[in-house]
Amino acid sequence: MTAHPAVSLARSQRSLGDPGLRYPLHPPLLRGCPRTATADMVYPVEVDYAYEDTPADLFTRPMGGGGLERWAPLLPPLDAPGLGEGGTALVPLGDGLWIKDESRNPTWSHKDRLNRVAVSAAVRVGAKGIAVASSGNHGASAAAYAARAGLRCVVLTSAGTPPAVASFLQAYGADVFAVPQEARWPLLAEIGDRLGYHTVSNLTRTHTGHPFGPEGYKTIAYEIHGELGVPAAVFVPTGYGELLFGVWKGFRELRDLGVTDTVPPVFGCEPATGGPLAAAIRTRAPAAVIEVGTTGAYAIDCAAGGNRAVRAVRDSGGDALLVTDEELTRARDELAGQGVWAELSAAAGLAGFRQWAAREGDVDGPVVCVSTSSGFKDLGVGGTPLQPIEPTWEAVSRALGRA
Amino acid sequence: MTAHPAVSLARSQRSLGDPGLRYPLHPPLLRGCPRTATADMVYPVEVDYAYEDTPADLFTRPMGGGGLERWAPLLPPLDAPGLGEGGTALVPLGDGLWIKDESRNPTWSHKDRLNRVAVSAAVRVGAKGIAVASSGNHGASAAAYAARAGLRCVVLTSAGTPPAVASFLQAYGADVFAVPQEARWPLLAEIGDRLGYHTVSNLTRTHTGHPFGPEGYKTIAYEIHGELGVPAAVFVPTGYGELLFGVWKGFRELRDLGVTDTVPPVFGCEPATGGPLAAAIRTRAPAAVIEVGTTGAYAIDCAAGGNRAVRAVRDSGGDALLVTDEELTRARDELAGQGVWAELSAAAGLAGFRQWAAREGDVDGPVVCVSTSSGFKDLGVGGTPLQPIEPTWEAVSRALGRA
Repeated sequence: MTAHPAVSLARSQRSLGDPGLRYPLHPPLLRGCPRTATADMVYPVEVDYAYEDTPADLFTRPMGGGGLERWAPLLPPLDAPGLGEGGTALVPLGDGLWIKDESRNPTWSHKDRLNRVAVSAAVRVGAKGIAVASSGNHGASAAAYAARAGLRCVVLTSAGTPPAVASFLQAYGADVFAVPQEARWPLLAEIGDRLGYHTVSNLTRTHTGHPFGPEGYKTIAYEIHGELGVPAAVFVPTGYGELLFGVWKGFRELRDLGVTDTVPPVFGCEPATGGPLAAAIRTRAPAAVIEVGTTGAYAIDCAAGGNRAVRAVRDSGGDALLVTDEELTRARDELAGQGVWAELSAAAGLAGFRQWAAREGDVDGPVVCVSTSSGFKDLGVGGTPLQPIEPTWEAVSRALGRA
Repeated sequence: MTAHPAVSLARSQRSLGDPGLRYPLHPPLLRGCPRTATADMVYPVEVDYAYEDTPADLFTRPMGGGGLERWAPLLPPLDAPGLGEGGTALVPLGDGLWIKDESRNPTWSHKDRLNRVAVSAAVRVGAKGIAVASSGNHGASAAAYAARAGLRCVVLTSAGTPPAVASFLQAYGADVFAVPQEARWPLLAEIGDRLGYHTVSNLTRTHTGHPFGPEGYKTIAYEIHGELGVPAAVFVPTGYGELLFGVWKGFRELRDLGVTDTVPPVFGCEPATGGPLAAAIRTRAPAAVIEVGTTGAYAIDCAAGGNRAVRAVRDSGGDALLVTDEELTRARDELAGQGVWAELSAAAGLAGFRQWAAREGDVDGPVVCVSTSSGFKDLGVGGTPLQPIEPTWEAVSRALGRA
């Protein structure tokens, strides 16, 4: 590792289906690796870097004021302006357990790390706008970064989006349309093609997503390492598995660069009503597409899995954990009782850890659960009206059960 | 300044009505300075420190992972556990203008800085719980810090609280009661007295609030200084003026410690439908209580002003600016167009700066506008339903005005 200016060392896209297959860095392969794709299975690509030129002090210099610029050498070029994303708090829950609170990002979810990088790619390739299909966080985040970059944005979402999230999606000036779930992706592809908009969500049967997205997420691993070193395990809310892969990749890079000795096991925590990652792990498939049931964890309620999550779990020695809505609710309540109001989906990391720890027993070393987003995005928000009360001590006392 | 461990150097409470009057640090004087109080005017107290023992590197050491611990020597004792509050992003808007985005705190507003410090005081004095009167952010923040400290919390709020904020207030397990606005404060005092709960909002005719609250806020000045040095001016959304005073005090301390040469002018930005600070400045009063009209900026819609804001404006050479709802809306839209979704009240700083700059012309040096909170807390949230659309390119194209 040598001293170097803070320019991107990204040099190519590499297939997850065949690591020998490389493509130029731009344009991003929004439909995964073309050469390994079959009718049933599409592999994503990831970004490769000139790692040998990594600045010697990249992982030891002070964090600074936040913003992915801090990690620019090991990210694709950051052409879109930032919002100070990343640098989120690690909140201790005691007994060596830590919550990485991603609700502290510019649009209050982890998706800002992805969108800083993905919208940068759109700027780099001269796209006329951004198109995204999303149930909430991803769409609002894409809209925010598009607005900041001076790009139009189309968001395709569902009619069932909670009212507060509907306001959130529309806050940044995007064109937001509610369409049936199954119609989203073909329409997204058509909008991208016809308008020359860069798509920042998935377009393929098994999930490939934006090739650069997990690069944004891997900075979570860098940040955790900066505060705790290598944790004993990391538990991650998992829908398509982009976040899980990103966190794993960050730790893998730290080890490959000789900064650390080991990669922690990463655990993908999915709603028990679905679980494409668990299905792929169980059947030893590169990815699975499944039927999903009904869960309140709408942000991670995914039928299509992808190869990223499978790679992260298998290579790290982690696992796929299925958490019930009851376990999710318990974890969300535990977080709220510690002052962290998380979306139900965001509590999946802690729910997975509690389930796993009940089975496996004590852990040697710190454990990190990622909490992806704020409670404001949940289905029930706005549905707990305040009860008026007579403004007297007697009435309050009665209500508190002290009468 | 000498090297020293990170313990609090706080040593007394000092009256703003008569700086010669000092009181022990604990218990916090929740009803202001008793010896200078009259029927019409109550002065707050502030915290004094053994400044001569300030660690030499306090303002130069790296920021670290956030959390007010970073500034422990110049804060009251931090007995309550934290949530990684502070360390918020400074987002550049161009032309030397910066937004200090306080929505990046644990409960997504600046109030977390106050509550870390105020709930710590409650823990220190052995209070049985926390009581707070609040239209939203303050109440939820107090509830979060109370929960984390293992204390019960009673929140008195208004029936007109937006639905998403009602969920927010109830998220952390507090007992939340909706009572008429005018009944809040006497009831709060009674709850505090009868239950032995520590009150973290105001109890007096002219505003005094929690004596330690602005100490939390002053860390905003420390952080701004760490990134930009001394800005040319700071514009602050102003209700009771605790935040304004805190920001000013932080810069004043930096100058008094010899770290900087000057204190920037601070501008209190109030809704034009009220403006107790503007009234006090205009009449050269130590504080004013006024009639208020109707504004969407409910978080800073205050009838009772206090001496803190008056002191900050007068001593810094700043001013009180009255911003209309139209100016607030324009500022909020400008922020959203840059990827920052702020509550209407939170946009008051930028609204004030735009009004002031139109009158005064160019500024020499960076200007910081504090944005206090996220758009999720606004009155209109949940009231902009999504429009379903036929899921075809033709329908989308028509909706985009391209047909």
